[in-house]
Amino acid sequence: MAPSYKVTYFDLNALGEPIRVLLSYGSLEFEDVRIKYKDWPDLKPKTPYGQLPILECDGKVAHQHIAICRYLAKKVKLTGKDDWEDLTIDATVETVNDLRIMVAQFYYEHDGTLRKKLQETLMNETIPYYIGKLEARAKENGGYLALPKLTWADVYFTSLIDYINVLVDKDIIAKAPNLQAVKNKVWSVPNIKKWMDKRPQTFKLADFPPPPK
Amino acid sequence: MAPSYKVTYFDLNALGEPIRVLLSYGSLEFEDVRIKYKDWPDLKPKTPYGQLPILECDGKVAHQHIAICRYLAKKVKLTGKDDWEDLTIDATVETVNDLRIMVAQFYYEHDGTLRKKLQETLMNETIPYYIGKLEARAKENGGYLALPKLTWADVYFTSLIDYINVLVDKDIIAKAPNLQAVKNKVWSVPNIKKWMDKRPQTFKLADFPPPPK
Repeated sequence: MAPSYKVTYFDLNALGEPIRVLLSYGSLEFEDVRIKYKDWPDLKPKTPYGQLPILECDGKVAHQHIAICRYLAKKVKLTGKDDWEDLTIDATVETVNDLRIMVAQFYYEHDGTLRKKLQETLMNETIPYYIGKLEARAKENGGYLALPKLTWADVYFTSLIDYINVLVDKDIIAKAPNLQAVKNKVWSVPNIKKWMDKRPQTFKLADFPPPPK
Repeated sequence: MAPSYKVTYFDLNALGEPIRVLLSYGSLEFEDVRIKYKDWPDLKPKTPYGQLPILECDGKVAHQHIAICRYLAKKVKLTGKDDWEDLTIDATVETVNDLRIMVAQFYYEHDGTLRKKLQETLMNETIPYYIGKLEARAKENGGYLALPKLTWADVYFTSLIDYINVLVDKDIIAKAPNLQAVKNKVWSVPNIKKWMDKRPQTFKLADFPPPPK
């Protein structure tokens, strides 16, 4: 019998989404548990490190979203053909996550003055630098991010970019045709398209804690 | 012919050290390039994302320290026996890195008031929480961190803990006998001991940018 997966996250795309998309890509059935903020304080101490998402499988619990994605990428065969290819994928994923962390640091900063400073650096320096580099890689790879073929780095990027765009209130790949190509290629995979069409529409800014005024 | 490795980092342990220790563990010869701060502005734009460490191998360049460690862990056989074990190792490594990031955020904060606030949260909440959890895991695993056997998570933890201790100016595992056991086990592996004995002694606080007054 195939293992039964359970993904627990908030009712958001964000860090839970690459996990859900990878499972969908491989037609691996999963229970899509979405925690309400009011229920989080009770659940938090029961998670491995007080964080979501977690993945449960055959009674075992896994945490850390990138680690979970890598595990699932092996199951659904979106990894590289050798260790160096996997290193390239891993480094790409960590780089996208670095960008995500810097965006979140700005978004969740509650000191108005500091937030403005973080925003300036982010919009004028960090994002142009990262998007420029990633766009060049995607061009080199013919519309794929890590290697010249579909890997879980493409799924990871595509699953996170909408979340990043919402946080910075701008489409940061609007002028990056090759990164748009990555997103379009991922979205047009039939199993992923099917998931995108049926997934809960939760991508509302109202779901996030309000930024400081 | 065995591949020729070149590790480029600053003249510090920090993020370069788990890479050097993994190479040493597997008796993989490597060139240990240590960049002076004055030479960094020239080198920075030549690196993949303006960051060190990087690993060069047969003319190819890899970045992102955890991705590099995982690659080397496969070469030196410090990975798990199956995908779930590797997931457990990966999640442990990411958790140790999360702690490292929070410590660095405090250390490199230049606003005095904010720094004090970060320090209080770190010392009174974050570190006790993380060290408590990791200590419990190390106890469960008989003095190993991720699994009940030596893996690259142990090497990663041991290579980073001294750096973390320097940044917070305290031995945060002083009251965690099982985490001390992890460190002792790693250090007593003959190839690692040999490296520790011969490595440059660079662990001086003076090597870091001074904290704000």
